[in-house]
Amino acid sequence: MNCNTPTDICFSFAGFQARGGLTDIHRDGWGIAFFEGRGVRLFLDPQASSASPVAELVRSYPIHSLNVIAHIRKATQGVVTLENTHPFQRELWGRYWVFAHNGNLKGFAPELRGDFRPVGQTDSEFAFCHLMETLRARFPEGEPPLPVLFEAVREIATGIGRHGEFNFLLSNGAFLFAHCASRLAYIVRKAPFASAHLKDQDITVDFSELTTAGDRVAVVATTPLTDNESWITIAPGTLMLFVDGEPVDAGPAGTVAFTGSGPASCG
Amino acid sequence: MNCNTPTDICFSFAGFQARGGLTDIHRDGWGIAFFEGRGVRLFLDPQASSASPVAELVRSYPIHSLNVIAHIRKATQGVVTLENTHPFQRELWGRYWVFAHNGNLKGFAPELRGDFRPVGQTDSEFAFCHLMETLRARFPEGEPPLPVLFEAVREIATGIGRHGEFNFLLSNGAFLFAHCASRLAYIVRKAPFASAHLKDQDITVDFSELTTAGDRVAVVATTPLTDNESWITIAPGTLMLFVDGEPVDAGPAGTVAFTGSGPASCG
Repeated sequence: MNCNTPTDICFSFAGFQARGGLTDIHRDGWGIAFFEGRGVRLFLDPQASSASPVAELVRSYPIHSLNVIAHIRKATQGVVTLENTHPFQRELWGRYWVFAHNGNLKGFAPELRGDFRPVGQTDSEFAFCHLMETLRARFPEGEPPLPVLFEAVREIATGIGRHGEFNFLLSNGAFLFAHCASRLAYIVRKAPFASAHLKDQDITVDFSELTTAGDRVAVVATTPLTDNESWITIAPGTLMLFVDGEPVDAGPAGTVAFTGSGPASCG
Repeated sequence: MNCNTPTDICFSFAGFQARGGLTDIHRDGWGIAFFEGRGVRLFLDPQASSASPVAELVRSYPIHSLNVIAHIRKATQGVVTLENTHPFQRELWGRYWVFAHNGNLKGFAPELRGDFRPVGQTDSEFAFCHLMETLRARFPEGEPPLPVLFEAVREIATGIGRHGEFNFLLSNGAFLFAHCASRLAYIVRKAPFASAHLKDQDITVDFSELTTAGDRVAVVATTPLTDNESWITIAPGTLMLFVDGEPVDAGPAGTVAFTGSGPASCG
């Protein structure tokens, strides 16, 4: 989720949580990261989200955030343990970066410089470490302008993607990258707001009662979370950038503006 | 807390939580990190622990861990926000390291190489980044033997401690360092187990009902958490190493053994 105003994700999370063991097979752990300013709250649980007390807390305790990344795991590489649970987090250039991957990279094992090393055994964390160290090596002084960063992430992602399915979400709290290798869809909710009904649980929310006119919220997911809204399918091979609740062209440096207003509730 | 068997910290946390706004002035956020294997669950909340729904979860949901670091904050440097909330976490040598600081470092601003950069504005996170980058620079290939690491941490801590009070806890999930600059005490609970009564809340636990003969749990705190046990005061200027639930001399490499048994409940 990427928003222009701090938004809770309680609605989407209710559907998402069900996929972790109830309506879907992703029962090998789950996690969710909420950016609040430059800080992150990362909740991880190696058990199925449908049975997790931590997931219950997340579902019932509204944390308002501009950028949220959540993941439910179906283990392909690496055992079911906490250190193999997504999302993963590292610090780069004085910001936290959070990463979640859907897919399976086979035989992906470039030599790492050592700046970022995997703690667990997943292909996903390995790819994240490779991405982080490549970015640091290329921009040792600090975060480059967004268009430059976008091109670098796209290029590195394309390289990693040669080894298998590499759908991922990546955020530093200011914006959200979404890379589609095979399956990814998104929706932008903005005025005039309407009702949304979850696919995975019989829950409906009328966003018009919970939002103000300027709110804008983008939700990206492997498959649509609701069944009465028009989700947009992202073309395989695409890296998208979401800022302030909508997809943007990375464009020339400085064209991306950040805004904000009071807390909303349409995630 | 450092243990030889996975232990929950529900008892100690009940007293600790009260200090975050009820019985003490540390109301500027709190956090707690649980190691589970190589993984970490880090719960952070910039509000007072005595009023935090996340703290309620931690208090009532027994997470079993060999190493736990918790912190309640009284802000000295840096505003009250999530990114300034302890403990802090970084990855070094393919392990997560968790750090919490009590004290105030004034004018401590060595130039950082850039491997580890603070995300927030606290003296504490700055010191942690300095500690991590100094260790990586000194041992670029990986984690050195424990006695070598111990000496390095002691030396770096002494240097940082010249700038102010530098009480800290540091763990990578395998062991716990505790550095006392001014105030720190510990207790080791082992057979024969007895009852303990909290100082900050009227709660008593009979550990003999919850443990097995081989369990051993060390709890380190700024001031004793219970009022009917004999806590040992750590001498200012001391770095201690806790392994398997007791203080150990770092000794020659390879002398430190790790053991483990079923879950216990005497934290």
